[in-house]
Amino acid sequence: MTDTPSLISPTPTTRSDDRFPAILGMMASGSGSNFEAVARSIDNGDLNAKIAVLIHNKPEIKAIERAHQRGIPTVFLDHRNYPTREELDRAIVTTFRAHQVECVVMAGWMRVITQVLIDAFGDRIINIHPSLLPSFPGIGAIEQALAAKVKITGCTVHLVSLEVDAGPILVQAAVPVLADDTAATLHARVQIQEHLILPQAIEMLASQLRLAQLRR
Amino acid sequence: MTDTPSLISPTPTTRSDDRFPAILGMMASGSGSNFEAVARSIDNGDLNAKIAVLIHNKPEIKAIERAHQRGIPTVFLDHRNYPTREELDRAIVTTFRAHQVECVVMAGWMRVITQVLIDAFGDRIINIHPSLLPSFPGIGAIEQALAAKVKITGCTVHLVSLEVDAGPILVQAAVPVLADDTAATLHARVQIQEHLILPQAIEMLASQLRLAQLRR
Repeated sequence: MTDTPSLISPTPTTRSDDRFPAILGMMASGSGSNFEAVARSIDNGDLNAKIAVLIHNKPEIKAIERAHQRGIPTVFLDHRNYPTREELDRAIVTTFRAHQVECVVMAGWMRVITQVLIDAFGDRIINIHPSLLPSFPGIGAIEQALAAKVKITGCTVHLVSLEVDAGPILVQAAVPVLADDTAATLHARVQIQEHLILPQAIEMLASQLRLAQLRR
Repeated sequence: MTDTPSLISPTPTTRSDDRFPAILGMMASGSGSNFEAVARSIDNGDLNAKIAVLIHNKPEIKAIERAHQRGIPTVFLDHRNYPTREELDRAIVTTFRAHQVECVVMAGWMRVITQVLIDAFGDRIINIHPSLLPSFPGIGAIEQALAAKVKITGCTVHLVSLEVDAGPILVQAAVPVLADDTAATLHARVQIQEHLILPQAIEMLASQLRLAQLRR
């Protein structure tokens, strides 16, 4: 206890930003480290959002455990059960709508999406890709960068369009490629940046949504 | 004057590196700011090389004045006087050979080169390009980056192959694209990095040549 007068009210008024957390629906096919990064950014107040649900298409991935530890429901949609990509996307849309999802975050989702998802969520679908797009789109971006012997690669968060790994870029980060890098060591270094820029990009989109809500 | 014992000999022995400066032939079509950057790196000892001659294909560019201020001869080869690209390249090779050139540095050379130059100088031809290759090869790299709305671009120094803006990458530098960037402001920021990495890349090649000479 000190007598120093408090310059900040002990019961601060709510920041306008905090009134409308963006409701996120996340999609993952792997470890869920990007899911975890987003969840932590919400925890520490950098990102004003709420993860409503995590959809995964692989049965036993680490992302599931990470979600359950945070009390976030997970939905398993096995792509092999859907004869077409459109039918899988219809199931995704149905799931997200049931959870009032506003923004879709593809955090290592390894399936090509269709017009069905775009019709439902328009320009509120975000993807993260482990290269400085437009270099090295598609699968194996880390391996592509190593094969091209670039000295700098990185990662990109972009809005999703039908063309794979295209669409307006929101945030990028550059990562040096070291002489003795393997795919594993380079991927690890790129992921550190992914975990920084994905929450930043979601907050950019979320703040646009909040602005739209305040104007209503 | 002090009595502090000198730890460094007042007449240091020649460093082995200094014995074999790489003899550079430079090619420019524009302001020659990269030419100037290379010359300054030689002046301050970062780059152990000597610019033997500057070839230019535009009659009144600033690069000429910069070369003459340093006593470096310039040769004007007007591409319009040569019916084919090969004939222009033969004139370039003749000029460089007359000046005992070992390494060719294309510092903003706006003509496509041919097998003639590659046959003569092999893997000792360096080009600088204002993008993070493989993104945005060809002309208008800065404008291409702005149109693609990337958040990070940069520059690349690479060994020259017949394919335009391809060939093994020696050094790259990343440059952020700012929201209010024009082609002029972005180009200016990229050029600052060009002036850093071009001398670095030449020194990489020059040190290989020195090693080869020491082993003879």
